[in-house]
Amino acid sequence: MPKIVDHEKQKELLAEATWRVIIRDGMEQATVRKVAEEAKMSVGSMRHYFSTQSELYTYSMNLVTERVKNRIQALQFNGPPLMDMKKILTEILPMDEERKIEMEVWLAFNTKALTDPSLRSLSQKVYMELKAAITKIVNSMFNLGFTHSKMNIELEIERLYALIDGLALHGIQEPTKMPPSLIEAVVMYHLESMCK
Amino acid sequence: MPKIVDHEKQKELLAEATWRVIIRDGMEQATVRKVAEEAKMSVGSMRHYFSTQSELYTYSMNLVTERVKNRIQALQFNGPPLMDMKKILTEILPMDEERKIEMEVWLAFNTKALTDPSLRSLSQKVYMELKAAITKIVNSMFNLGFTHSKMNIELEIERLYALIDGLALHGIQEPTKMPPSLIEAVVMYHLESMCK
Repeated sequence: MPKIVDHEKQKELLAEATWRVIIRDGMEQATVRKVAEEAKMSVGSMRHYFSTQSELYTYSMNLVTERVKNRIQALQFNGPPLMDMKKILTEILPMDEERKIEMEVWLAFNTKALTDPSLRSLSQKVYMELKAAITKIVNSMFNLGFTHSKMNIELEIERLYALIDGLALHGIQEPTKMPPSLIEAVVMYHLESMCK
Repeated sequence: MPKIVDHEKQKELLAEATWRVIIRDGMEQATVRKVAEEAKMSVGSMRHYFSTQSELYTYSMNLVTERVKNRIQALQFNGPPLMDMKKILTEILPMDEERKIEMEVWLAFNTKALTDPSLRSLSQKVYMELKAAITKIVNSMFNLGFTHSKMNIELEIERLYALIDGLALHGIQEPTKMPPSLIEAVVMYHLESMCK
């Protein structure tokens, strides 16, 4: 069914055009007209793929999480456990240009979701998915017997989750003050500090 | 000079109207016209206080940090050191409606600053001011002899700073999943974990 594949591919290209407009000009500028222009497509043709701006936004926001999930699924785990955990965590951190773009787009959509009900449920869903991934990591460390006896699992999960999102925010906001090497060092320092 | 005081007061009222529009309708809606409407003022009168949207935005963004700084300066420190440190940190966390509004407005402006050069320098300045405040806290803990000998001060500063901003983000995004009581518990857990 080549036609269906092309349809999906076109939607991805339009979502990526949306990302580029957001990164370059900001969320306010990411109108259907500007995105069509960026994708070198007419507004009329674009309506064939997304009938509303809200559909375009939801798809573009969701594509970020799809990309991240695909990368995490493709990871090979063969190192020491802490290194494998770091591998997972750095997939949701701005470690290179690709991930920096994703995180920046994600931040813009999430900020918009605070006042845009059409993006709210996706934002909430991914919040919980990320929390589930963080929970898995903290539980593994506990089950492997790595952690302190005085550890509070619930608080460790919230702490690691907030730390990761804070590092992502700083890496986007101030990439020269929080470069990938420093992000990685803080993540490893934190994982090690959780161990006895 | 009552006239000058009134002028400043009017600017603050307009900045607060800007905050309300951002919180309720999103950054895209915070145009000069909408803010004037919210403040029950004509666009013409508003130009008397802010001649451009950019001036209005910079002033409104800066007012967030002024409010936070004033509150921190007014704090009384008389408890055990960790409690005093928690007191400072929770002033930049969404612990009540007032601080939640400030953090949400701050997030919206910071996200906008990624693509708006007129807000960039203020965003960078406050990033460094907050880092200086966090540095002071970590250094105090070290100087008081509270911390582990294997502590890495540089990484502890970045870790605490990222944790605080991540908690603020989660408290804004998901206030029912990250309520003030949980924010406070994570902050105390973290400060205690830094101690030997």
